[in-house]
Amino acid sequence: MSHNTFGHLFRVTTWGESHGPALGCVVDGCPPGLRFKLEDLQVWLDKRKPGQSRFVTQRREADLVKVLSGVMFDTDGETMISTGTPISMLIENTDQRSKDYGDIAQQYRPGHADYTYDLKYGIRDYRGGGRSSARETAARVAAGGIARLVVPGVKVRGALIQIGKHKINRQNWDWDQVDNNPFFAPDPEIVPVWEEYLDGIRKNGSSIGAIVEVVAEGVPAGLGAPIYSKLDQDIAALLMSINAVKGVEIGNGFGAAEITGEENADEMRMGNDGTPLFLSNNAGGILGGISTGQPVVARFAIKPTSSILTERQSIDAAGNNVDIRTKGRHDPCVGIRAVPIGEAMVACAIADHYLRDRGQTGRLK
Amino acid sequence: MSHNTFGHLFRVTTWGESHGPALGCVVDGCPPGLRFKLEDLQVWLDKRKPGQSRFVTQRREADLVKVLSGVMFDTDGETMISTGTPISMLIENTDQRSKDYGDIAQQYRPGHADYTYDLKYGIRDYRGGGRSSARETAARVAAGGIARLVVPGVKVRGALIQIGKHKINRQNWDWDQVDNNPFFAPDPEIVPVWEEYLDGIRKNGSSIGAIVEVVAEGVPAGLGAPIYSKLDQDIAALLMSINAVKGVEIGNGFGAAEITGEENADEMRMGNDGTPLFLSNNAGGILGGISTGQPVVARFAIKPTSSILTERQSIDAAGNNVDIRTKGRHDPCVGIRAVPIGEAMVACAIADHYLRDRGQTGRLK
Amino acid sequence: MSHNTFGHLFRVTTWGESHGPALGCVVDGCPPGLRFKLEDLQVWLDKRKPGQSRFVTQRREADLVKVLSGVMFDTDGETMISTGTPISMLIENTDQRSKDYGDIAQQYRPGHADYTYDLKYGIRDYRGGGRSSARETAARVAAGGIARLVVPGVKVRGALIQIGKHKINRQNWDWDQVDNNPFFAPDPEIVPVWEEYLDGIRKNGSSIGAIVEVVAEGVPAGLGAPIYSKLDQDIAALLMSINAVKGVEIGNGFGAAEITGEENADEMRMGNDGTPLFLSNNAGGILGGISTGQPVVARFAIKPTSSILTERQSIDAAGNNVDIRTKGRHDPCVGIRAVPIGEAMVACAIADHYLRDRGQTGRLK
Amino acid sequence: MSHNTFGHLFRVTTWGESHGPALGCVVDGCPPGLRFKLEDLQVWLDKRKPGQSRFVTQRREADLVKVLSGVMFDTDGETMISTGTPISMLIENTDQRSKDYGDIAQQYRPGHADYTYDLKYGIRDYRGGGRSSARETAARVAAGGIARLVVPGVKVRGALIQIGKHKINRQNWDWDQVDNNPFFAPDPEIVPVWEEYLDGIRKNGSSIGAIVEVVAEGVPAGLGAPIYSKLDQDIAALLMSINAVKGVEIGNGFGAAEITGEENADEMRMGNDGTPLFLSNNAGGILGGISTGQPVVARFAIKPTSSILTERQSIDAAGNNVDIRTKGRHDPCVGIRAVPIGEAMVACAIADHYLRDRGQTGRLK
Repeated sequence: MSHNTFGHLFRVTTWGESHGPALGCVVDGCPPGLRFKLEDLQVWLDKRKPGQSRFVTQRREADLVKVLSGVMFDTDGETMISTGTPISMLIENTDQRSKDYGDIAQQYRPGHADYTYDLKYGIRDYRGGGRSSARETAARVAAGGIARLVVPGVKVRGALIQIGKHKINRQNWDWDQVDNNPFFAPDPEIVPVWEEYLDGIRKNGSSIGAIVEVVAEGVPAGLGAPIYSKLDQDIAALLMSINAVKGVEIGNGFGAAEITGEENADEMRMGNDGTPLFLSNNAGGILGGISTGQPVVARFAIKPTSSILTERQSIDAAGNNVDIRTKGRHDPCVGIRAVPIGEAMVACAIADHYLRDRGQTGRLK
Repeated sequence: MSHNTFGHLFRVTTWGESHGPALGCVVDGCPPGLRFKLEDLQVWLDKRKPGQSRFVTQRREADLVKVLSGVMFDTDGETMISTGTPISMLIENTDQRSKDYGDIAQQYRPGHADYTYDLKYGIRDYRGGGRSSARETAARVAAGGIARLVVPGVKVRGALIQIGKHKINRQNWDWDQVDNNPFFAPDPEIVPVWEEYLDGIRKNGSSIGAIVEVVAEGVPAGLGAPIYSKLDQDIAALLMSINAVKGVEIGNGFGAAEITGEENADEMRMGNDGTPLFLSNNAGGILGGISTGQPVVARFAIKPTSSILTERQSIDAAGNNVDIRTKGRHDPCVGIRAVPIGEAMVACAIADHYLRDRGQTGRLK
Repeated sequence: MSHNTFGHLFRVTTWGESHGPALGCVVDGCPPGLRFKLEDLQVWLDKRKPGQSRFVTQRREADLVKVLSGVMFDTDGETMISTGTPISMLIENTDQRSKDYGDIAQQYRPGHADYTYDLKYGIRDYRGGGRSSARETAARVAAGGIARLVVPGVKVRGALIQIGKHKINRQNWDWDQVDNNPFFAPDPEIVPVWEEYLDGIRKNGSSIGAIVEVVAEGVPAGLGAPIYSKLDQDIAALLMSINAVKGVEIGNGFGAAEITGEENADEMRMGNDGTPLFLSNNAGGILGGISTGQPVVARFAIKPTSSILTERQSIDAAGNNVDIRTKGRHDPCVGIRAVPIGEAMVACAIADHYLRDRGQTGRLK
Repeated sequence: MSHNTFGHLFRVTTWGESHGPALGCVVDGCPPGLRFKLEDLQVWLDKRKPGQSRFVTQRREADLVKVLSGVMFDTDGETMISTGTPISMLIENTDQRSKDYGDIAQQYRPGHADYTYDLKYGIRDYRGGGRSSARETAARVAAGGIARLVVPGVKVRGALIQIGKHKINRQNWDWDQVDNNPFFAPDPEIVPVWEEYLDGIRKNGSSIGAIVEVVAEGVPAGLGAPIYSKLDQDIAALLMSINAVKGVEIGNGFGAAEITGEENADEMRMGNDGTPLFLSNNAGGILGGISTGQPVVARFAIKPTSSILTERQSIDAAGNNVDIRTKGRHDPCVGIRAVPIGEAMVACAIADHYLRDRGQTGRLK
């Protein structure tokens, strides 16, 4: 089960399960001299934190991040300055409600990793799914908080654009709305629709899929490489590494399959300020694997959680047919909390390519 | 421009441009004792080879692969046996038609990597796009030929399922049809539709996008890891590394966003032979990043090539506004030749995870 | 300052400085099903722990290791079983004596990393050397404790064989003596000699170099690869990664430069039990980068610590000439505590190659 | 047998055996805009080329290097300019004398990798040792030629300083002498001694070990990292990856074990030009894993080749005791030709760390 590390120069290693004492990550390769306060990281963890509305799991976690290494404190005793050494961050698990897992311990939830886990490892932490628990993503979000500091001026924002068949109206897109509703929806008109729809899902003990869009502005042009280290490839890999993600696209994505070269071409003109302008952004800010300077646009699809109250046919570890229902606290739509996670993954990919292009230390240049 | 290597234990490094003397790859980590003939590799290269129908580029390349290292010959002087050392393969470029590239050398084709290349590297092989040339993929296909030998009993097949808005009828899916038409279409009824449609595109000097589906059967259960080394993540990364790919999905993919947990759950029952059966495959053969033993199903979207005859607004290297048309031989639908490339990438990802799970040498087990 | 990770399948990431709240490591790639108790790890940390004799630093650290993830507890509530997920271990820093670092903060100790740190990073944790502090090695030793469990039957032991010009008599080698003296000396006759010699060094506030030998028995034959992943190469790299190490050798090492092919050849005969026997072990258990099944023998040289009481010429950060003396608690011979660290590094290299050869999961074989 | 690649941003993958049609390497990560001619690479290959004196193998190889990719030609049609894409280089094997390998095919030469190869891979190219053949190093030397161009002003030179027990007199060190004798000796007075000694070795069909020293001048200060990516660690790993190398040291190396902190400390003073001066270089140009700006000094020990005419006890693949003598053309002292190989490895390590510190593209800075 190697490779809980990602990134080439900006490298993040995460560890921890939902039912151990804590989880966390080590951010290696962070340049020296970055200045930040704990609240600059905590803000992203709070965004992902469970229990913030009736539409997400009711598990209660403070999700307070601690920084254990890699920084020195400025004279104010509050501002941290990165030293270039590994930044170790830790988040305690506080709500490990002891309950009867009897069934799940021996039975496989359809659509869940239970089965493949047992098959591969022969041992499985049934108390929350081990590494496939969404709790692991708290560590990613903390790492993303550091990544956002690495590239000057970069701004990475995400939004939920679809729940089930209910899509936002892109005409209404307003970033200021995203934090004003429990869905990270950029379209205020979709909020009541989703509320009513998700209440129904929730009451039935059902679950539903969703689509998240992440946009990174201020990405310097020239980050990435033509193949095997394409910026979009690394973004796609990290988004696909998020639990329950089944699809990823860049810019027009699958829509590019349906249009002609004329429609797809992002035409260019020189701007009045003497810098090149793109007249459209079908490419999603990446051409030939390299950033153009336009906003980088990525989307990913999250499947519905497999933990549902409706009875489903399955088998148990002993090879018996069983019918299974999953009790306990779950997200009716895990896509909601995937928004800050997607942001973190995109921020990490950009930071990694930034360091590869510009160098890791910076001081000697 | 580092990282022309992919894979962790089964590692492939590709090199070469469309206008150098040759291109090729080094396959490192191949287990010893694999037996194959040159034709076992050539068959895949022939599938990708240009000039085989009026619907692909008319560039003429023999695309004959040579094996320069990593094998010993059996007594028949024809069968190669892998020794476990790096397998170096070389493909000569034979059709480097010298022509006037004057415009393209200084101008940026909208939607093409020209602009980002110059921006990043300050030097660019305008004679065919350098590493972003589709010719690079010949090396991938050769590597995929080796990868197919690594996992006993695995069968990786691809098909074109959509061109522009014209989709196949999945009810008609017939693998035997795939090699009976110039599109790798599994649905014979779509062939005349695509022919007529693509003839129009071609005559206008236009281009169109497409979607490819790759299915891997016989993948052992238990390959992959929960996060950061998920089998689906590595497949997604390699598919996204193919030129012009803008989206990737596994199993239901983006469709998973629109269904409920009940619909998405692949129910299980014990088969009569005592082995577990899945009653559906929404997961695309991968749960929690680990293969289930069901067929692995991946799809990817290819954008239309940016080389079109219609005039488009752009700029040149000197910062002047220009209008540009791209002459020369191009694929009206690059998605067609992407089918064997997609197969190769999926085969490589599976081989890599197989070795990580089972060990690299095999002999000592 | 990326790359605080080593290993390819058995991967260790360490973090932490001597003056932060804690330090630790994440061991990724550990196979599932390994059973151990905390004391099985603590025993190695105790061996490295400071303050155990007058010949090592008087800094007092409990160096108690905690396991935060990657295990489930057996019914005895004490025995841990690895789940195959990352094992995160943490060691608190308890003795961060606040003192006046005024001089060292601005001045560069000759032979110390102060100068290159400031030069590269522009910021330096002068309170103990940051990552170049020997405290980092506590995390390595904890990781080594896990590594020792990965390869069945392997036994990795180290000993101090030289301090300054005083060498042990190899005729007297007795492993049972190693833990009976404060030097990890395998030769009881050298102990009084070293005691008297080191007391002199210590009283002068001086320091002295040393040589450590590590022997790994029970290493399966066939681990490693011919080049770039030679078992001896990975061992050499990890030993060289230990602070203050300036030389590494395998088997005869530098002695091999002075002998002929006839003398160097380890002759072979079939043993009575039908297994091959080597009549000597000049190779140090590794031929062509691959283990032979004989004991793997490695040695490394540790320079004297640069923290000494004698005044030395140096410069300060402002570019002034200064004369500097280093007060504080230091090891007169850092080589002593390097013994368990060297053992850990060799154990990790062997575990990594074992997994590469045999596979990471083990269950599916 | 994965990992025929080394380097993190400047990555070299080598391939090929001594008895295939060719061998070569792919240099990935080379920055764009480097200008060189073929002769700038060939000069290093010629230095390593066999058959240049009676003291090295009489195998005849032209060792002409070809560049297949990664460059564009300047208008002179001769000067190559790196494009930042992978540089693939190929060297043909011309002298594959067919001879009777009957014995060696089934018998194991003591001290040779034959035994471990068969054990691990179950198949072995007995016609020259496969990947453990010294021919592989021709590819390294070609890669080193590119590496030398990456770091402006760096100068990497090597010399043979000891054969058997016969050491040079360091007082006589004169770099200008190195290319004036068949041994790369920097001390003219040792040449006749070595000639007489090696003639004896050669006539007996024996072999002898040696020590090589490599010095890199003009290495910018600040390259490397404190642990796991120490510049000296990467140099040690690459030198240890050379066939027959059994020991590596930096600066004082093993000598550091015998001196005190006072003796080891490289004192500093500000120079008249306002730059820091070191008054000695015991550290070998590296402190805490990071370059100081002083010359980087590394040494490595090469064992005598195991191919000797004297009969030795061994076993064969069938498990029989045999007595074996190795006929054929061999180097009486492989250490001689290791000089340019060692230079290449040091140059590659420095280039890799230079790119990590300064960035890969350079253009955007």
